[in-house]
Amino acid sequence: MGRAVRTIAEDGDDIVILDQTRLPQEVVYARLKSLADAAHAIRSMQVRGAPLIGATAAYGVALGLAEQLPPEQIFPTLAATRPTAVNLHWALARVARVLEKSALTGRRELAALAWSEARNIALEDAEANAAIGRHGLEIVREIAKRKQRVEVMTHCNAGWLATAANGTALSPVYAAWTAGIDLHVWVSETRPRNQGLLTAWELAEAAIPHTLVVDSAAGLLMMQGQVDCIIVGADRIAGNGDTANKIGTYLKALAARAHGVPFYVAAPISTIDFACVDGAHIPIEERAASEVTDGEVPVANPAFDVTPSGLIAGIITEVGVFPPSALRALER
Amino acid sequence: MGRAVRTIAEDGDDIVILDQTRLPQEVVYARLKSLADAAHAIRSMQVRGAPLIGATAAYGVALGLAEQLPPEQIFPTLAATRPTAVNLHWALARVARVLEKSALTGRRELAALAWSEARNIALEDAEANAAIGRHGLEIVREIAKRKQRVEVMTHCNAGWLATAANGTALSPVYAAWTAGIDLHVWVSETRPRNQGLLTAWELAEAAIPHTLVVDSAAGLLMMQGQVDCIIVGADRIAGNGDTANKIGTYLKALAARAHGVPFYVAAPISTIDFACVDGAHIPIEERAASEVTDGEVPVANPAFDVTPSGLIAGIITEVGVFPPSALRALER
Repeated sequence: MGRAVRTIAEDGDDIVILDQTRLPQEVVYARLKSLADAAHAIRSMQVRGAPLIGATAAYGVALGLAEQLPPEQIFPTLAATRPTAVNLHWALARVARVLEKSALTGRRELAALAWSEARNIALEDAEANAAIGRHGLEIVREIAKRKQRVEVMTHCNAGWLATAANGTALSPVYAAWTAGIDLHVWVSETRPRNQGLLTAWELAEAAIPHTLVVDSAAGLLMMQGQVDCIIVGADRIAGNGDTANKIGTYLKALAARAHGVPFYVAAPISTIDFACVDGAHIPIEERAASEVTDGEVPVANPAFDVTPSGLIAGIITEVGVFPPSALRALER
Repeated sequence: MGRAVRTIAEDGDDIVILDQTRLPQEVVYARLKSLADAAHAIRSMQVRGAPLIGATAAYGVALGLAEQLPPEQIFPTLAATRPTAVNLHWALARVARVLEKSALTGRRELAALAWSEARNIALEDAEANAAIGRHGLEIVREIAKRKQRVEVMTHCNAGWLATAANGTALSPVYAAWTAGIDLHVWVSETRPRNQGLLTAWELAEAAIPHTLVVDSAAGLLMMQGQVDCIIVGADRIAGNGDTANKIGTYLKALAARAHGVPFYVAAPISTIDFACVDGAHIPIEERAASEVTDGEVPVANPAFDVTPSGLIAGIITEVGVFPPSALRALER
């Protein structure tokens, strides 16, 4: 198995992405040459994770403009790929704003401008996530003061695979491990797409001790006192702190509350949707039945759930750790 | 696909079981001719579900005696197959008691006596489960008074496949459907062995509306008000009402409490372990990593969790519905 290093990279006029639908079995890259390629990569989850979806969408605008497609086609196509992750809309709005403000009119120049802004988005995401790691490290360090080994639980994959680099929920884990803190990660399988296997693969690459469990095991592990903290990523955080994340996050937050385990959300500020007052206003993506079973069975497959802010001990951002009630102060 | 009618049946000197590891893809029967066959059937989950494990173990004693094996080998072999379901031990103890009380000494006669007691156990299980259905029906009927369609959630498979006949958690569902109550069942996938597919298959055979969801979806569905009650089976109920059942049951009970959804356990009295004071004393079976993934990933695979009695609205038995605190009155 080759060693993957980047989720998304520029290569001449193309974008090259790590195809996450082939992981962890194979490290295979896919080349995005068009708007359609970018939209397909997001929809099919070749790229996934809210921050990485945002960066890919931004590059998708540049690819579409280079194809001479009209913005009226480009933006709605990308916006429609996935409904829950707000970073998608945030990145598209950011590129749109840059294009609107520009005095340029040539398609080639506008494409170059969009490309440049997409690169900024990716670079800033990597930096923000590194900062999330530094702030989250302090949480892990506090636990390590009273325990030999810190037991962290996560859900889905919010590691470097979900971002331009460094990860969100796993960034504090990487930072703590690098700082010499002994830790172990409980990796939740994350049905139906099994992103837990991506997390296990990331952690194995970094030689960080970890154990895969089915999603249903979270309650028992917490009852047994085997979890010191939970850190998850987010697809959209409402202004009041209610957090949409991969389906199953909410059950972990409920169990954490029942057992006094602090539950943290790690996400860059771009994941906060200040226009969204609370979790009830976050659209929940319904995905294909075929993700759950290939049998002829009636299936519902909601991809996300909402964890009420009251269950969240803190939101780890690039500018610090905040209680959900304090998020409004970050609005710019 | 053939139509299965029995989980366990006598056929001459053999026992014939429905091989549940092949369901729902294939309806295939397996023939048990020896103690080893019976032990393998239980351990490999060809038969599963606490009541059916008990009945199979009882027949296993008869098969072992017919092979001229000593009881000192037969009983420990069967008792060691699976640790959590108490019906296994209950059934073995019941057969042992009958054999001890008997004046018979010939192996052939003792085998016949064990066979007869195994048959009693299976018949009584079927009857007890039918009675569970009648008592549970009243719970569903109450909900139906204020709602057009009753939304029931279950976990794992506690249908007729898990018993000698009629099922435990699904027995009230079958009774309510037969009584003309409009209902729909949320079927939880139940990783890692996907017993939810068995439940979906059972319900499809009975033409009862149902929808399969991943285990993680339970919190979202309850938050959305899409669940009126939860009914699950049990592998062992402690004297104080704490209930061990398939891993993931506890998370559903926590979400039920958070959303005011009544959470019921349906089980025959043989599932109550009066010698066990509380859930902390119930052994939790750890099963093979290969059930979770075929990759080379460190795995923990606890098969059960414990739901504290405080989260349980009632335990539906063959003699009525009881609050967990009242179980002691059933001790005989």
